[in-house]
Amino acid sequence: MPSSSTQTLDVALGERSYPIHVGPGLLADPRWFASLAPAQRVAVVTNTTVGPLYLPRLQRTLETLRVACIGIAIPDGEAFKNWETLNRIFDALLENRCERSTPVLALGGGVVGDIAGFAAATYQRGVPFYQIPTTLLAQVDSSVGGKTAINHPLGKNMIGAFYQPQAVVADTDTLTTLPERELRSGLAEVIKYGLIRDAEFFDWLETRLEALLAREPEALTFAIVRSCANKAQIVAADERETGIRALLNLGHTFGHAIETGLGYGQWLHGEAVAAGTVLAADVSVRLGYLSPEQKERLVALYRRAGLPTRAPALGAARYLALMGHDKKVQGSRIRFVLLRRIGEAFVSADVPETVLEQAFAACCGHG
Amino acid sequence: MPSSSTQTLDVALGERSYPIHVGPGLLADPRWFASLAPAQRVAVVTNTTVGPLYLPRLQRTLETLRVACIGIAIPDGEAFKNWETLNRIFDALLENRCERSTPVLALGGGVVGDIAGFAAATYQRGVPFYQIPTTLLAQVDSSVGGKTAINHPLGKNMIGAFYQPQAVVADTDTLTTLPERELRSGLAEVIKYGLIRDAEFFDWLETRLEALLAREPEALTFAIVRSCANKAQIVAADERETGIRALLNLGHTFGHAIETGLGYGQWLHGEAVAAGTVLAADVSVRLGYLSPEQKERLVALYRRAGLPTRAPALGAARYLALMGHDKKVQGSRIRFVLLRRIGEAFVSADVPETVLEQAFAACCGHG
Repeated sequence: MPSSSTQTLDVALGERSYPIHVGPGLLADPRWFASLAPAQRVAVVTNTTVGPLYLPRLQRTLETLRVACIGIAIPDGEAFKNWETLNRIFDALLENRCERSTPVLALGGGVVGDIAGFAAATYQRGVPFYQIPTTLLAQVDSSVGGKTAINHPLGKNMIGAFYQPQAVVADTDTLTTLPERELRSGLAEVIKYGLIRDAEFFDWLETRLEALLAREPEALTFAIVRSCANKAQIVAADERETGIRALLNLGHTFGHAIETGLGYGQWLHGEAVAAGTVLAADVSVRLGYLSPEQKERLVALYRRAGLPTRAPALGAARYLALMGHDKKVQGSRIRFVLLRRIGEAFVSADVPETVLEQAFAACCGHG
Repeated sequence: MPSSSTQTLDVALGERSYPIHVGPGLLADPRWFASLAPAQRVAVVTNTTVGPLYLPRLQRTLETLRVACIGIAIPDGEAFKNWETLNRIFDALLENRCERSTPVLALGGGVVGDIAGFAAATYQRGVPFYQIPTTLLAQVDSSVGGKTAINHPLGKNMIGAFYQPQAVVADTDTLTTLPERELRSGLAEVIKYGLIRDAEFFDWLETRLEALLAREPEALTFAIVRSCANKAQIVAADERETGIRALLNLGHTFGHAIETGLGYGQWLHGEAVAAGTVLAADVSVRLGYLSPEQKERLVALYRRAGLPTRAPALGAARYLALMGHDKKVQGSRIRFVLLRRIGEAFVSADVPETVLEQAFAACCGHG
């Protein structure tokens, strides 16, 4: 019997449906890995930080199912999400004579999931793939959508495939070793789901934020499942990224500009998204879509979560350039995700430059 | 109006259907490329042999549709079907700011089709793909099945994806510059379709072989369309390669052993398949499945096609090793495609080693 604290969400996408299991203690429980038993052997891609912490636990669990583990540890960090690392994974799969039926498991955060997923998508033209995300960001973001990729020197995530996992096992216990700053960064993506389409969830987050920061398993489980359910509904409605899937980019247009402007790695993704969302909210207020009170509510929640609510002072001109704004090119208008209220976002390509400049002046620097 | 000599076959596979247009003069005719017009720009992957011959012709045709061509020429040969070459394609796509909507066209033989197809499958997680095969082998084999791949130092076609093209344009005029030996090698794959499931087509090939060798457009068009139609029916019945798709490997188990045993590139693929098919036929006769007369018929057709009908004398022990036969491993029996008659193949894992040894003794060397 699953313990009452474990929840399973079924994601129905395209041709296949797969479960996301969320809760504490899952890595130590063979039930969640029973579907691997027929394979007898699996390849586990992890990194040099997460591997020592959780690979032995997973290995022991798989041993009880008589499934052998081929461990493949890659270096930790976005800088290694490239062809060289991918090829090391292929080398290991081939040296161990992994076959088309040998599952590939990703044990780690977003980088491990992206690169292991792409390896699974392309090794012998596709092998079964399982995700075991160990960061809050990966649990609420990479678990749904099937995106896999590596970076190219000329662009992030430029090479990849859409490839769905057979199952996702998100063990909230793995969050106990997550650095505080990464937990808070993950919360920015959790809060995003409340902002764009789930006001009730936002209310819940306001009530239970301290439980999440204290890493209480039940609060984490609820927040992860609710986030994944929101993302699954959006992706199911728009698999080809032409319509409402754009709402998932709330705070991301500004956020990417912050990340690129500061140099990748200075701010974590969620930190940039939080400050970027405040900018989007500020623009929404200036254009009369959002009330100032609602904006203050979201700023207050970010503050409690320890997330930045002011963007770095790069200057309006630099921000506009980073966002790909080009006065000389017709039709180069940027599409922004704006807020009408907490729980309702929309896309607008109709934001005057002067309003953007006012928002940068109001929301950047030490304030 | 399409000329009467152009034929179109619709391939219905999985979620999508796509057309294969076959006939003379197609590269010079904008009708077959009209669906590219909205894209305005395409990337054409070709090689340094085929590019000078046919890229200008394609470019002129696309110009009449106001579609600009980004030409990407890779070195000619299987040795270059690797990551390094793939990355050069990605570099070119990124340097030219190709987008998710920019089609990738493969203009060339099997290597160009495989690597360009894999680039299309993975650039920005998938862009529209068009195949313009310029060898007989690519026209009858790569046009159907959606296989794309690159080689890895530890194995051929180890990295790849299943990715269907939007359309295939097979211009029989491009076969006029194909080296004689490659034309004959391609015919081995054409003959294979007759052998495994289409006795009527085999009869036709016996009648019209000289027309094919003389590269008469109407004969070529018929043979290409009929081959693709046979392959499409097999693949549609068995997309996951679990059952009858194995029949496509007639002559390939022996053939791969010949290719590997001699070192890749010594014999062309079709040459190895022809000699390998004779071995399979010989085994079929020895086991009482096939009549000696039927075997002689296929040997006679290969001879007329200028294809080898005797395998190189590598010795039975070496052949068995090359085919992965291992006495120590239980269940390592090789699955052979055998013939019951011309037009009917089947799979058998029940071939005694002594029969194989007799076949090698009878069918190898100068005879």
